[in-house]
Amino acid sequence: MRNISEDTITQAVLAAMSDCRNERLRTVMTSLVQHLHSFAREVRLTESEWQYAINFLTEVGHITDDKRQEFILLSDTLGLSMLTTTQNNRKPPECTEATVLGPFFVEGAPEYQNGEDISNGAAGLPCFVSGHVRGLRGEPLPGATIEVWQSDEDGYYDVQYAAPRQAEAEHRARGRLRTLPDGRFHFRSILAEAYPIPHDGPVGRMLDALGRHPWRPAHLHFWINAHGYEPLITHVFRNGDQYLDSDAVFGVRSTLVADWVEHPPGVAPDGTAMDTTFYTLDYDFVLNPDGHAR
Amino acid sequence: MRNISEDTITQAVLAAMSDCRNERLRTVMTSLVQHLHSFAREVRLTESEWQYAINFLTEVGHITDDKRQEFILLSDTLGLSMLTTTQNNRKPPECTEATVLGPFFVEGAPEYQNGEDISNGAAGLPCFVSGHVRGLRGEPLPGATIEVWQSDEDGYYDVQYAAPRQAEAEHRARGRLRTLPDGRFHFRSILAEAYPIPHDGPVGRMLDALGRHPWRPAHLHFWINAHGYEPLITHVFRNGDQYLDSDAVFGVRSTLVADWVEHPPGVAPDGTAMDTTFYTLDYDFVLNPDGHAR
Repeated sequence: MRNISEDTITQAVLAAMSDCRNERLRTVMTSLVQHLHSFAREVRLTESEWQYAINFLTEVGHITDDKRQEFILLSDTLGLSMLTTTQNNRKPPECTEATVLGPFFVEGAPEYQNGEDISNGAAGLPCFVSGHVRGLRGEPLPGATIEVWQSDEDGYYDVQYAAPRQAEAEHRARGRLRTLPDGRFHFRSILAEAYPIPHDGPVGRMLDALGRHPWRPAHLHFWINAHGYEPLITHVFRNGDQYLDSDAVFGVRSTLVADWVEHPPGVAPDGTAMDTTFYTLDYDFVLNPDGHAR
Repeated sequence: MRNISEDTITQAVLAAMSDCRNERLRTVMTSLVQHLHSFAREVRLTESEWQYAINFLTEVGHITDDKRQEFILLSDTLGLSMLTTTQNNRKPPECTEATVLGPFFVEGAPEYQNGEDISNGAAGLPCFVSGHVRGLRGEPLPGATIEVWQSDEDGYYDVQYAAPRQAEAEHRARGRLRTLPDGRFHFRSILAEAYPIPHDGPVGRMLDALGRHPWRPAHLHFWINAHGYEPLITHVFRNGDQYLDSDAVFGVRSTLVADWVEHPPGVAPDGTAMDTTFYTLDYDFVLNPDGHAR
């Protein structure tokens, strides 16, 4: 231990955790230290690059607050989030696939009844969303909880607006509802549009340096919970979006792409007379029973 | 790209950076992404562990400020700092070895003349430090700049004290001096004592969970610069310290261990009459010529 060299330091760090009583923690940290050291050796990381990394992570930490989560953006843009999501959500191919949670989910969104407008003043063309939540054998799942959230036509989620505007109308374009007795749900919101992830911070600079764009294809977030079934965290992506093949966070699945149908002014599915263009989206979700085929 | 799986996501992330024009950045990020993904696959990282890691890094970021650098502590305690230092400071065995910079170096420390007391009121038993700075062939290096810094007898560096006390006496037990025409330097300071790295934050909790202690053996930091020679960032460690074989940051080298000699009250090396116990340390440094044998 007094004569650790380049070649023996990894073993020395692992030996230092030999008293760790949490076996899973030791397993995770052993792999982490081995890969961290292998990375540093493989690229022969220089001292100035190390210092750059320390400064970068410090910036990521300092821009992160209760409204902005730059570490999640970093994980998302490096593909770690989607890898973690995918390897923890193996399920039969009939089930709806999972994708990343993203940094914009908020606890405590308002409850809505089916048919209500969850936009709460968020800007965008009207969109009527409907679908069913079913189990793997086609059984309808009544009373399932659906959290839904999305950005507005300018590409921002409510939480991204500065406090004054936020105070005027909290929780815009997000809400919580329950499926009806036949497993159906329907609500009004706004049209999903493509948007760049927040790129005015260190992660944006990283993307720029890597020659990458920060855009995500238009999507609507869902988090569905039903008793006896695995939770489903996913998006529905808008067919035709130019970023479907280059999502900045690697979250697209072809099975999650659906048509947002454009309609001229007229009568909406819920009977509302619309004097503007509006959209409809119909998408069904299939949940995996708890403990099934993981 | 619309059907990325667990198995193809790494290639998708690497393909996304194919437009990167900075070749070194692409090399570093390619290795980083590969190892990050391999780690997540190898341990089959769960979603709650991923969330724990996001929260942990957020805490590391939030406790970091201009006085405390928790990311450096994290790098130090995982052995990454020492690995980086070692692989960037390969030199002939006659040269003084390098070790970690640590998080407590401060730019702009006060200048002292040889013989002066750099403690500036920091608490501790008096210690008279002397030595030579030489080149690889034994040539004395006059006018070399020496930055020196250390903790006090309570184990704290000046920058760790809260603002009021800090304002009273900034820059305690740290200073900058130059070698004399014969390459010699000498100054008065305080006795180096073992201390725990700051462990009231997330890194301290990590060490605790891993069954590791936060202690470092007593040491004195040096950063020596001489024209035509590689900079040397190192410590001298105090012989006999109980933590020499379990340094929390893996920084000890046996060649850097030296005797702090205890003396009863009497006349110090510089002629000062001392009415308390005092210590002396004599240590010579050998610098590597620029561009030599890396």
